[in-house]
Amino acid sequence: MTIVRADQPMGLKQLFDETGSSTYTYLLWDTETKDCVLVDPVDVKVDRDLKEVEELGLNLIYGINTHAHADHITGTHLLKQQVPTMKSIISAASQAKADLTVANGDRIVFGNRSLVVKSTPGHTEGCVSFVADDESFVLTGDALLIQGCGRTDFQGGSAEHLYQSVHSQLFSLPKSTIVYPAHDYKSRTQSSIGAELESNPRLGGGKTQDDFVEIMAGLDLAYPKKIDVAVPANMRCGVPDVE
Amino acid sequence: MTIVRADQPMGLKQLFDETGSSTYTYLLWDTETKDCVLVDPVDVKVDRDLKEVEELGLNLIYGINTHAHADHITGTHLLKQQVPTMKSIISAASQAKADLTVANGDRIVFGNRSLVVKSTPGHTEGCVSFVADDESFVLTGDALLIQGCGRTDFQGGSAEHLYQSVHSQLFSLPKSTIVYPAHDYKSRTQSSIGAELESNPRLGGGKTQDDFVEIMAGLDLAYPKKIDVAVPANMRCGVPDVE
Repeated sequence: MTIVRADQPMGLKQLFDETGSSTYTYLLWDTETKDCVLVDPVDVKVDRDLKEVEELGLNLIYGINTHAHADHITGTHLLKQQVPTMKSIISAASQAKADLTVANGDRIVFGNRSLVVKSTPGHTEGCVSFVADDESFVLTGDALLIQGCGRTDFQGGSAEHLYQSVHSQLFSLPKSTIVYPAHDYKSRTQSSIGAELESNPRLGGGKTQDDFVEIMAGLDLAYPKKIDVAVPANMRCGVPDVE
Repeated sequence: MTIVRADQPMGLKQLFDETGSSTYTYLLWDTETKDCVLVDPVDVKVDRDLKEVEELGLNLIYGINTHAHADHITGTHLLKQQVPTMKSIISAASQAKADLTVANGDRIVFGNRSLVVKSTPGHTEGCVSFVADDESFVLTGDALLIQGCGRTDFQGGSAEHLYQSVHSQLFSLPKSTIVYPAHDYKSRTQSSIGAELESNPRLGGGKTQDDFVEIMAGLDLAYPKKIDVAVPANMRCGVPDVE
């Protein structure tokens, strides 16, 4: 119970996995109550993430995934082992296991701050994005990347769905909203809705759905190295194969 | 700390003052935590309001005014006497006294629910509207009424400002957002942004700012009966004249 001022930003720390997946993990917190969440934690980076939580004096409430990743194993299972009160969250549409599942329009509350869930399928069927309560930023997962987007050729991917997701759920946000993606492979850390709307070479600059479908069909991408290990583990909230 | 589901409405009770001011007071609450707020309470209706709070088993956190009213004395002073932990809230732009003041973009949090403050001057300089966290409804005070609007000829009123407020801050909400005004004189209880945008005879249906200014200048309204008593009291959070 408080008044969150218009100019009071959510605490945010962007953490990078340099060991191979190039994943951005986001630590977000209420600067007053110190309650925090981790979005898209990576299994090999859990110790770093918990050190950040401890150094900032935060209480870890939720470990959240934007989708069942194909390129790394989520850290939520290991985080739960070390912080037994933390609950894991993923979209119901992902069909993956977690303590709690969410759907479009749900609001994940930590302290007096919250993230609004936006359903953004297309890279996978269960992809969601998370919009900050003040619309100052959006965590886009693999739906919208900086000057790019996630591939659409496996895990129920669909170029048509991804185009519709990005245009209806993300490009409708204020142009000033910062875009924080789940990956970048060129050391870029952020973009904005306005910049992607204008110049994303696949989805912006007036590109039509037909243009996008054609671009995605012509990509000819390699089979993801870790997909056969990562996806089954991530469907179990990061629990490794027991055999 | 919870997940507020997309289909989980805020608790809402609309209460009418039939003793003369035709004011709608709104009791809003978090159905999980039972924390509540009262918006635009009227001095002569405070006992009724508190009975509702008690019967529903709620905890009254904030007593909030959309503006310094000219037609009735706010109930916030009497509410504070009976519920000492309740804090009163009004906009800083109103220049009225209250425990807490708010400005555009601030979020008033009660339990896991919240109202976003939208600055909507024009009826008075300090008028604000309150948008529900899920944008399902907006409390418009006297800025936007059902098929009408507040007058703009006293208390720093300005037809130009009111037109800009309604178009930029209210008509930009989803068409489905329910409009709950601070008054109705014809027993109507609610409208929607879509309906007002389409057919409000002063502000909707394609009316321009020039049209609106001309309409408001031609109204030739009577001097408000209670303004000389109500406004000074409301500038003190409803504390009556001590002389």
